[in-house]
Amino acid sequence: MAATFAQPHAHGRLFSTSPLPKPTKNLRSPFTVRMSLQETGPSIAVVGVTGAVGQEFLSVLSDRDFPYRSIKMLASKRSAGKQMTFEDRNYTVEELTADSFDGVDIALFSAGGSISKQFGPAAVEKGAIVVDNSSAFRMVDGVPLVIPEVNPQAMRGIKVGMGKGALIANPNCSTIICLMAATPLHQRAKVLRMVVSTYQAASGAGAAAMEELELQTRKVLEGKPPTCNIFSQQSDLDVKVTATCIRVPVMRAHAESVNLQFEKPLDEDTAREILKNAPGVVVIDDRASNHFPTPLEVSNKDDVAVGRIRQDLSQEGNHGLDIFVCGDQIRKGAALNAVQIAEMLL
Amino acid sequence: MAATFAQPHAHGRLFSTSPLPKPTKNLRSPFTVRMSLQETGPSIAVVGVTGAVGQEFLSVLSDRDFPYRSIKMLASKRSAGKQMTFEDRNYTVEELTADSFDGVDIALFSAGGSISKQFGPAAVEKGAIVVDNSSAFRMVDGVPLVIPEVNPQAMRGIKVGMGKGALIANPNCSTIICLMAATPLHQRAKVLRMVVSTYQAASGAGAAAMEELELQTRKVLEGKPPTCNIFSQQSDLDVKVTATCIRVPVMRAHAESVNLQFEKPLDEDTAREILKNAPGVVVIDDRASNHFPTPLEVSNKDDVAVGRIRQDLSQEGNHGLDIFVCGDQIRKGAALNAVQIAEMLL
Repeated sequence: MAATFAQPHAHGRLFSTSPLPKPTKNLRSPFTVRMSLQETGPSIAVVGVTGAVGQEFLSVLSDRDFPYRSIKMLASKRSAGKQMTFEDRNYTVEELTADSFDGVDIALFSAGGSISKQFGPAAVEKGAIVVDNSSAFRMVDGVPLVIPEVNPQAMRGIKVGMGKGALIANPNCSTIICLMAATPLHQRAKVLRMVVSTYQAASGAGAAAMEELELQTRKVLEGKPPTCNIFSQQSDLDVKVTATCIRVPVMRAHAESVNLQFEKPLDEDTAREILKNAPGVVVIDDRASNHFPTPLEVSNKDDVAVGRIRQDLSQEGNHGLDIFVCGDQIRKGAALNAVQIAEMLL
Repeated sequence: MAATFAQPHAHGRLFSTSPLPKPTKNLRSPFTVRMSLQETGPSIAVVGVTGAVGQEFLSVLSDRDFPYRSIKMLASKRSAGKQMTFEDRNYTVEELTADSFDGVDIALFSAGGSISKQFGPAAVEKGAIVVDNSSAFRMVDGVPLVIPEVNPQAMRGIKVGMGKGALIANPNCSTIICLMAATPLHQRAKVLRMVVSTYQAASGAGAAAMEELELQTRKVLEGKPPTCNIFSQQSDLDVKVTATCIRVPVMRAHAESVNLQFEKPLDEDTAREILKNAPGVVVIDDRASNHFPTPLEVSNKDDVAVGRIRQDLSQEGNHGLDIFVCGDQIRKGAALNAVQIAEMLL
């Protein structure tokens, strides 16, 4: 999962909105017994179920009591046959094939771009609505790129039961986390330009990368040279906003330093109030006690945290702000956003 | 050592220059036997000799064959009496007092701002030239704030043997590292505005902080809660440039994402050439093999590494660039810069 940033045409689509209700806090007890076993919800498939985001799809479905009639656990041939328990039921991981999507209403994909390209259209042909967490369809015209708090209208008319499949793309994790904070400010004062520097967690490169970070850390502490299979250097950039994407040795939450230039003046107190009322956003901005957002504090949380909200005095007339944003890369950056999209399909 | 950024009036002083010769690479064998034991150089005092920067002062003095007649190893009462070996001589750490500077020509201070404020003027009164690594005198009018590659002329006239003491301030580590790369570009195209986001190493908070990072990492890997004496959160900001300073779990090299706005157009190829020829700077910018500067690669190195040199397309007419800079915080960010200043005093 590369750290691509908001692309030119994506930008326009993402920046617009009607706010959603504030989500309830999740308690992170994913494998508890459900209140009632629904037999009426959609049939779901999770593609890449053994991966970091795949596992988080299940956690979020459980946390949010997402109704489903059945779940197919799909992965590569290598993982096929593995046994899993989810919400007190046993599952066997099945190998992903073109036939996997017979009777599937919603398919949550997070198995990399090439798998999405190979099997996404096949799933749509079988009538499934695919919510894809890869970059495969993010820049494809006609595929909505959706953050539910930002542009729910982009997927208007796409519903389970409409009799045909569809593709919906989950934006890049850094983009989601950044826009959760930038969009409410944009609605008030119109963002003209953004300078973004990311502090991206290992999780953005998958479960194996998280394991590698832990392993490398152990080796370094033992005074041994670390093995580097996944992380050499990581880099990416884009041009609509100007962005520098940096991987840091942090497990699963991204942070971003965002400099905003607005068309209209916006003072930092107003910005703070706007962000306090923004759905899916919490403000942590306590200078007196030096308490600001950190990756650790947002790990396993749904909300994106914003703080260090400061007037950028290098821009005149209150036309600039600096903010610091942290969000769980696997949760709001990937699985939660996809499941929120799936909820809108019902 | 807080992460203060280039202050308004410091900015003007730092941005100007005559280039220095490219320093030779250090081999990092600090405690080897000197070629010849000079008996003619200045009398030196190292204040805060048991700290991370204090130890690095000694390494750099040795690496660069800095001539000295004698060295006083000064620290707090707590460390007084400790035995040290440096360049085959044994030393006893002495308690820092107002009388410590009798006969001292050059005093290298890195023991925190309050110690500098308390003992710096006393040392000057005794005739010593103080090169101070704390923030104590950085904003004081008449105290040169010097990066030798950037503004050597700021300390013109201050020499050992001139018969009186003086104060010279070492800029903040993040400022030094940033300006090593930004200044050569500024000389060509004049920087109007900078947006800086730092990725600061533990070393910036001292030797105890480096130990704490290691200890915390061990505890987390053992599944135990880490103890947090030094690191809670760390933050700082400034307004001439707009800067967001972030501490990351990295041992001793800082990184900085820098967005530059120029008065004159400057294309990225020209910028790359300028930086390749800049003293104390190496360019690591190999997109084909995805090789860019990393904190690890510059650790224990003298040069500041610059890469990811990209036209900022959010600014029109080649008036913007993004760069990514890494530098050893303890070395060029502190001890090396101070010793380079000391070399200019001879």
